[in-house]
Amino acid sequence: MSQMTTIARLATRDTDFDTRLASLLAWEGVSDHEIGSRVAEIIAAVRQRGDDAVIEYTNRFDRLSATAMSELTIGAERLEAAFANVPTEQREALQHAAERIRLYHERQKPESWQYSEPDGTVLGQKVTALDRVGIYVPGGKAAYPSSVLMNAVPAHVAGVREIVMVVPTPDGIVNELVLAAAHLAGVDRVFALGGAQAVAALAYGTQSVPRVDKIVGPGNIYVATAKRAVFGQVGIDMIAGPSEILVVSDGGTDPDWLAMDLFSQAEHDEDAQAILVSWDAEHLAAVEASIERLLPTLEREAIVRESLARRGALILCEGPEQAVELINRIAPEHLELSVEAPQAMAEGVRHAGAIFMGRYTAEVLGDYCAGPNHVLPTSGTARFSSPLGVYDFQKRSSLIQCSPEGADTLGRTASVLARGESLTAHARSAENRLKR
Amino acid sequence: MSQMTTIARLATRDTDFDTRLASLLAWEGVSDHEIGSRVAEIIAAVRQRGDDAVIEYTNRFDRLSATAMSELTIGAERLEAAFANVPTEQREALQHAAERIRLYHERQKPESWQYSEPDGTVLGQKVTALDRVGIYVPGGKAAYPSSVLMNAVPAHVAGVREIVMVVPTPDGIVNELVLAAAHLAGVDRVFALGGAQAVAALAYGTQSVPRVDKIVGPGNIYVATAKRAVFGQVGIDMIAGPSEILVVSDGGTDPDWLAMDLFSQAEHDEDAQAILVSWDAEHLAAVEASIERLLPTLEREAIVRESLARRGALILCEGPEQAVELINRIAPEHLELSVEAPQAMAEGVRHAGAIFMGRYTAEVLGDYCAGPNHVLPTSGTARFSSPLGVYDFQKRSSLIQCSPEGADTLGRTASVLARGESLTAHARSAENRLKR
Repeated sequence: MSQMTTIARLATRDTDFDTRLASLLAWEGVSDHEIGSRVAEIIAAVRQRGDDAVIEYTNRFDRLSATAMSELTIGAERLEAAFANVPTEQREALQHAAERIRLYHERQKPESWQYSEPDGTVLGQKVTALDRVGIYVPGGKAAYPSSVLMNAVPAHVAGVREIVMVVPTPDGIVNELVLAAAHLAGVDRVFALGGAQAVAALAYGTQSVPRVDKIVGPGNIYVATAKRAVFGQVGIDMIAGPSEILVVSDGGTDPDWLAMDLFSQAEHDEDAQAILVSWDAEHLAAVEASIERLLPTLEREAIVRESLARRGALILCEGPEQAVELINRIAPEHLELSVEAPQAMAEGVRHAGAIFMGRYTAEVLGDYCAGPNHVLPTSGTARFSSPLGVYDFQKRSSLIQCSPEGADTLGRTASVLARGESLTAHARSAENRLKR
Repeated sequence: MSQMTTIARLATRDTDFDTRLASLLAWEGVSDHEIGSRVAEIIAAVRQRGDDAVIEYTNRFDRLSATAMSELTIGAERLEAAFANVPTEQREALQHAAERIRLYHERQKPESWQYSEPDGTVLGQKVTALDRVGIYVPGGKAAYPSSVLMNAVPAHVAGVREIVMVVPTPDGIVNELVLAAAHLAGVDRVFALGGAQAVAALAYGTQSVPRVDKIVGPGNIYVATAKRAVFGQVGIDMIAGPSEILVVSDGGTDPDWLAMDLFSQAEHDEDAQAILVSWDAEHLAAVEASIERLLPTLEREAIVRESLARRGALILCEGPEQAVELINRIAPEHLELSVEAPQAMAEGVRHAGAIFMGRYTAEVLGDYCAGPNHVLPTSGTARFSSPLGVYDFQKRSSLIQCSPEGADTLGRTASVLARGESLTAHARSAENRLKR
């Protein structure tokens, strides 16, 4: 076995490059059979016994001793107090972030539309907000107020009537910034619940927890497994994997900046992924030196070291075009284009959750306050999915109103096709409206 | 036990109305543990052994004796020949439908956008089509060419580069209209595969079947279970339940028309649901008489009788407002507003997959050729999901380009929030770009 290196060095011209890249990117978040069974049991119990089951599981998993759901309910006054008591600097930062997130997401709001055809038939599409949405916020040390804003503000902008938040309070620990963010983002109700029992309560409703139409927000493997299980009963956002960044540098950005950008991703957890691609070998060596020099200065050095060793990489490629090919192959959650002409390079990018362009656009600005959402498709799912947005909190209904002429024209076609499918009641339903 | 009635009669004023309605609507499409295990086994085998496993399962489940994937591949010439050989009337009907579906879905195409802030920071959203999509088309007797159009045309309009279709051919039976529709809709490749093995092949790729980014289309419980299992590895559309219609009549529509509209839904299968709501008791009685009189004239009488008896209902309500309340509670897949002023009533509808307005708009026109999609959210999922559309074949990437000024303003806020979350590498990444 080779000695443990700080971060892997790859080059696209290496004969084993494809294999090594594939193994670096591999991530299977699928839960095992045992977790699946335990989650199924929890969901069944919550459906059957409602609040009682929720309280039991919460007491067991979060080490509490609640006797009624009222003890696990966090009222509006409590949220407001948390907001009022946050230090001014933090309160203003939260307000700045919330306002920018709101402004960006306002631009996403689609309009309903309809149009008439010459024979008087009207077709259209009506956009409606979801009635009630549940937001899952992880508790404990990884409780992020920014996640509350990123999930709740788009729901609010979309016009959701009621936003219900669940956040576990293990050992009774409440994160004041999370409550403050909930107040600021327009969350209507908060329950101190987490895990599969919180997901089940939101999906099916209990005596105290209202049934929601969709559940969004990240969580551990139990939460992810529960979300997959209730999908269909309610909508869900996505099953998130570890966070990742792909940085492309043309060699012109300060190596210390790039090292810190990679660290900012790696410090999330040991499975987070930070990859730098460049066609400038000397520059890659300089960034590696910065990494080595700056690592000991980090508060979360141990996590960053582990994450870089397990899943990080510095990749030497042949040039900008090959860098774009790599981007599209990796389909990164976060893509930082630290190059001279980022807009031109972005043109060629087909798959990425969010694209951060230019040397000044640190990815972390998008985590907090640039405006676009920080809930992004991970593990290559940017191939087929999108950042969380206003869209996720609305749905569309098709509108069709046929004139008598339209019903005649369309009815003839429908009749032929229905008979071709042996669906004769379909055909006769259309034929009833034909002109005699 | 009471005698079997043709169709249940309910009234909102009945004391047991809520319970009876809830039990009528109840539908749990969740597969059992055994199906889950068998599907997991099939997926694992296809991932491990590729084509060989796919051929084995296909031979077993579809009673074939293929020895190579080439025998399960349907080439472009074969599709073109099917299209050329379809009787003229059917070919023209398919073309009429495809053209209208295309025109409607063209209206859904979103634009990418970006905007600049006063300090030069640019924010935006880039829309990109999926690279490759898989369309599952059920085979055998329930093979519907209209479904091929409804799934493939929006993918084509969205700009998907490659559309791969799978359709099982049990006992070697090929549906010529399905192949013709595939040719017309721009399907690029077709494999004669079905079941969980087809879903697994599309999700993970084999030597012959290319890995896709998203799988859409209906299927039986094995297909639905497989789609749920591969969700995350690829995108999926939805897990469809039985088809349903809710018709609201003000009493002014010919009872024979309404009876046939209900039949057109009920003839799909024994689990399909057809419900009529009216505030006119005499009218409901007239529709019931039409049902009794017309039932014996149906080709699929047995299926319709079973479906109406199991899940159909005629519901007497108090008036139009209560009808709208019922609509929003049921969140029907198909909603037919057979009333004098349907646009006004539609205003109050929050949850419905597609709204068919006015006496001339038979729901079946939407099944085939009105233009909007016939792939719609079932079983109340219109509360949170939408008709299939161009949206399902595209995804969005956020764009962020900070000016040096923007990086300074945003960096200060990000730094405060990152430190509030104890993510100090995040903070330092932002601070690197602050003005000195």
